[in-house]
Amino acid sequence: MSEVHTARRARLRDPAGRTAALVSHPANLRYLTGCAPPGAALLVGPDARDTLFLSPHATGRPTADPDAVTAADLGAEPRRLPEPGDELRFRSAGESGDPAVAAARTAADLGVATLAVEEHHLTVARHRALTAGAPHLPLADLGRTVEQQRLVKDEEEIAALRIAAEITDQALGELLESILVGRTERHLALELERRLIDHGADGPAFPTSVATGPHAGVPTHTPTDRRVEEGDFLSVRMGARYRGYCCQIGRTFVIGTAPADWQIELYDLVFAAQRAGREALAPGVECRAVDRAARQVLAAAGHGGAVETCTGHGVGLEIGEDPRLSPSAMSKLDARVPVTVEPGVHLPGRGGVRIDDTLVVRSLADGGPELLTITTKELLAL
Amino acid sequence: MSEVHTARRARLRDPAGRTAALVSHPANLRYLTGCAPPGAALLVGPDARDTLFLSPHATGRPTADPDAVTAADLGAEPRRLPEPGDELRFRSAGESGDPAVAAARTAADLGVATLAVEEHHLTVARHRALTAGAPHLPLADLGRTVEQQRLVKDEEEIAALRIAAEITDQALGELLESILVGRTERHLALELERRLIDHGADGPAFPTSVATGPHAGVPTHTPTDRRVEEGDFLSVRMGARYRGYCCQIGRTFVIGTAPADWQIELYDLVFAAQRAGREALAPGVECRAVDRAARQVLAAAGHGGAVETCTGHGVGLEIGEDPRLSPSAMSKLDARVPVTVEPGVHLPGRGGVRIDDTLVVRSLADGGPELLTITTKELLAL
Repeated sequence: MSEVHTARRARLRDPAGRTAALVSHPANLRYLTGCAPPGAALLVGPDARDTLFLSPHATGRPTADPDAVTAADLGAEPRRLPEPGDELRFRSAGESGDPAVAAARTAADLGVATLAVEEHHLTVARHRALTAGAPHLPLADLGRTVEQQRLVKDEEEIAALRIAAEITDQALGELLESILVGRTERHLALELERRLIDHGADGPAFPTSVATGPHAGVPTHTPTDRRVEEGDFLSVRMGARYRGYCCQIGRTFVIGTAPADWQIELYDLVFAAQRAGREALAPGVECRAVDRAARQVLAAAGHGGAVETCTGHGVGLEIGEDPRLSPSAMSKLDARVPVTVEPGVHLPGRGGVRIDDTLVVRSLADGGPELLTITTKELLAL
Repeated sequence: MSEVHTARRARLRDPAGRTAALVSHPANLRYLTGCAPPGAALLVGPDARDTLFLSPHATGRPTADPDAVTAADLGAEPRRLPEPGDELRFRSAGESGDPAVAAARTAADLGVATLAVEEHHLTVARHRALTAGAPHLPLADLGRTVEQQRLVKDEEEIAALRIAAEITDQALGELLESILVGRTERHLALELERRLIDHGADGPAFPTSVATGPHAGVPTHTPTDRRVEEGDFLSVRMGARYRGYCCQIGRTFVIGTAPADWQIELYDLVFAAQRAGREALAPGVECRAVDRAARQVLAAAGHGGAVETCTGHGVGLEIGEDPRLSPSAMSKLDARVPVTVEPGVHLPGRGGVRIDDTLVVRSLADGGPELLTITTKELLAL
């Protein structure tokens, strides 16, 4: 993997050799180095002088050699030790305390003209500490350069997402075989998270949401002590994180033998909207066109007001990444961009339906959108 | 509770009426309002014009009234709805998108001379958006004013911590009654977290660490698939979060009938260090004196180099709060400050011992330090 990370860092390097980049956002650090110890900072210098600085607070114990790095220093998952021949050098932040300040001082010593920092991640206080630590080094904004690099995934990243989705499907499938009536939302959510880990996930990609009865279909519902009852809608939103990669699934079920007519109608509607969104996915398509495809099905049925601001989003090392599938999203999709498609309708007091899938955008020649979360979307009565 | 929050916000109000405060750090928001929806910001104006702004991303669905707030908008735990007669007004951020920007515009409309923001929490990019949103309003640094307010707890906060500790003791106690040999660190950690929730915790206060054999005693050990073996040291570090309040316990056990001599020796040493730290806790005592009391016991036995930079820290709405118990900590303890005392020693390749307690600093007249985590600190062979 080391070569992959080296190549990613090389894309960040200024060919003119005048600017160095300082990366502090954890998901970006992990993308560029394979690890992200708490508070760490990566300096990408003009000529392959890449150095990952580690916090002394992460280090813990003082050592005779202040620059020495041990396995314990890389306590954040995943552990990653300097490999022989690794271009990346691991260094302690030393006396400055803040790895970003140590990186800025090193950049000043390298004689670069500018240091580009992640202004959307660094706090004002930390930015000021950089200026104080390297007073003659002008700071610029790196912006979301690394996030842009992360948008299109390579096949190794997609393979990790595929495994994350398999784990998620397994955990959800097992739950559906058990008896649900009488169990609480909180216990079902915990059970799902335990099963994710049983099947090899790093952990849940985000807090598992289990919503019953009137709660069903609320996208960010926090599980309560409400118990599953006959006749309920039950909606589940969950996902595994595997090797750092996050996927998402959402499904809605009915509890009991026969769903009511309004439940079948609402389900069919959300299913049609979700299918329209999925089928709109293709390289070159505007993100807002995908959103519109899903949204207009709901609006035509009079449920336009009950839809979220986004009907999908990118996934990867973070669960909510670019692109956004929303009415105001101006960008276009590319091949190998994984996204969720997740319209839903919630009727206050009655409940609702959500259907979320994770898919990878592929050209028609490559078989069209690749569905990662393959749990059935038929309306199951459990 | 509403009056408590009103009083806390009043302490933040500028008596001269010239400065407004903008609070964005989630733990501070929760302290001042009782809730912290994602991305929210609180404006404390000069004359009780308090407004909690909500993110439109949390809000989700567009509504006819853009300023309306529903239960779903307060999706973050705990839910808190505007109460009748509540001085705090709940508002949507509206078109600006960022609640902090909306708050800055309102502050400008109120005619204040300065807006004090949390520079240790706001990112550089968000700070710039505030300046763009309210270009004629000078920004200042609020610093850690709210964190300072949070240092000394009231008895209601301590009661929440006491319940968090009870839950933690119960979960750990149940685990000790079960068979441990052959189970993995990951499964034991999950089991402990499930039990925390069973007993009424909001969730774990921090990721539960279970460390066996050579891992035992590593403070931030991430549980692995290593199985518990006879003769192992087993160290557990965990804590419940209850009504937002976080506690911490750490205990080390031996697996099998008879601990080895080196295990007994190391345990007795860490126990003595931890007791010295606990006994040093009193109002008016320097934080570094508590650290020194624990640290010198370990140093005298030749283990000074294996000790963390901190031997304890404050707890409350965050698991790691001020004060720090470290050699460089200059502040003094006050009554009603809850802290951990948690020295430990790790011997590379062999394992180690950690003993962590959460206590509340009390004067001798009040009975001395109040131990919240009461699980036995005898060396148990399990």
